[in-house]
Amino acid sequence: MIRRLSVIGLGLLGGSVAKAVRAQSLAGEIVAVDRHRESLEPALREGTVDRVTTDIREGVAAADLCLLAAPVATLCEILPAVWAAAAPDAVITDVGSTKARIVAMAERLAGERPLQFVGGHPMAGSELSDYAVARADLFRGATVILTPTERTAPGATKQVTQLWEAVGARVTALDPLSHDRAVAAISHLPHLVADALVDAVLRMDPAYLELAARGFKDTTRIAASSPRVWREIFRDNRAALREALGAFRAALDALERLVTADDGSATERELERIKQARERLG
Amino acid sequence: MIRRLSVIGLGLLGGSVAKAVRAQSLAGEIVAVDRHRESLEPALREGTVDRVTTDIREGVAAADLCLLAAPVATLCEILPAVWAAAAPDAVITDVGSTKARIVAMAERLAGERPLQFVGGHPMAGSELSDYAVARADLFRGATVILTPTERTAPGATKQVTQLWEAVGARVTALDPLSHDRAVAAISHLPHLVADALVDAVLRMDPAYLELAARGFKDTTRIAASSPRVWREIFRDNRAALREALGAFRAALDALERLVTADDGSATERELERIKQARERLG
Repeated sequence: MIRRLSVIGLGLLGGSVAKAVRAQSLAGEIVAVDRHRESLEPALREGTVDRVTTDIREGVAAADLCLLAAPVATLCEILPAVWAAAAPDAVITDVGSTKARIVAMAERLAGERPLQFVGGHPMAGSELSDYAVARADLFRGATVILTPTERTAPGATKQVTQLWEAVGARVTALDPLSHDRAVAAISHLPHLVADALVDAVLRMDPAYLELAARGFKDTTRIAASSPRVWREIFRDNRAALREALGAFRAALDALERLVTADDGSATERELERIKQARERLG
Repeated sequence: MIRRLSVIGLGLLGGSVAKAVRAQSLAGEIVAVDRHRESLEPALREGTVDRVTTDIREGVAAADLCLLAAPVATLCEILPAVWAAAAPDAVITDVGSTKARIVAMAERLAGERPLQFVGGHPMAGSELSDYAVARADLFRGATVILTPTERTAPGATKQVTQLWEAVGARVTALDPLSHDRAVAAISHLPHLVADALVDAVLRMDPAYLELAARGFKDTTRIAASSPRVWREIFRDNRAALREALGAFRAALDALERLVTADDGSATERELERIKQARERLG
């Protein structure tokens, strides 16, 4: 049970956590902090949160759990202010798409003031990112990766784990660098590739887009994600993204060689191997 | 109104045409031809078709409209037999994923025996391809590309257009080579890229797949398509696919340069331009 939950950033992710926590009465009080009043007012009106503020200090005061749910670049900007204002027994966690930078920053701040920080990343979301699309069941069946380090108190990790499990997620742990490499492969690379697919058609003939069917739409859906959010994710994780791009180019070149060599049975074997891996995902 | 429709190949596409035609009573009689009795029996039992046969000659006899709905390699194998057995006034059309080869073959055959052929390609389908997933509304809202040439009788194109419009599709026309270039861009390239995305993760660490969320699943759904069907599509359209791969690599390289150069505002502008193009697709 959380006494006071502070949600800093009330978009899709922060809003969905607030709605799920409220729906299940997991917190005595929920306070939301956002730069923009427009995001806060509907949440207050709907009763998703009990108090709203644009002031970080006011928003995190006396909270026992602070959830930072802003885009990754904003997270690093606001973490020092959250850290300074948080209660001495507060646990701070986040939902950022990359983990090495924010965890390193938290560990530096902990050298000055010992607070508990647990890096987190719910693998849920959509190409839309506003509070308007937040929903209590967003995390049901989703995977949340936590990135505790050897300096993280097990009790803090446990508390954050309980929150995510209570809202329906499956929690797994990785160290921050492994996390960043994994999400480069399964999230950031597919985003960049979806962007390049749309651009490739624009380069060939924009009129071709009018012929696009479900396959193209599914494959490129994430190319409609927020440019402001994704410029920061790509930038923040560019080392791991470069490695993932290397693996992707090697895979694409190998497939093209098989097709070009007109080796039908070798092509079919490769496609079958890939199909089986993809089918295991459901 | 069709007197007798012959559907050669009763998978997802052929089966869906048969179901839609039956549902709307667009044909006096529907005959299905397939190599495999297992595909034919459920269709006969359900009343989707009136007669079934594994013999092409028997199946196309006296049909005024013959729809070839086999994978692209099979199409080219069976077209001569269909051509020889079809009625003198028959119109023959197909649903193949590439058009230059089959249209050229039809025009050669027409030099020997003048029959009407209209190349067609419904931009509908799924990663599943059996009769079991066929449905009468598959083409509702889909685009069908027809590829008549200067040798095609306008009346034949009109008859095929009416069939597709009657089952809910929007019909558009392209010459066969333009069709193949367009589908390389919006269909075959995304398939190869989805395959390479799955393989890239396997190359980095197969365990990462367990963390995959909706974005990865959407982007790679078509990697679960039939290897047997796609080895032939890639092979058949490899010249246009190579051009599309060139455009894609140039687009990906350009995006990577922006990210690597740490030019946040230029990255955001590019992502915004791409997002807007993608959003127009719905």
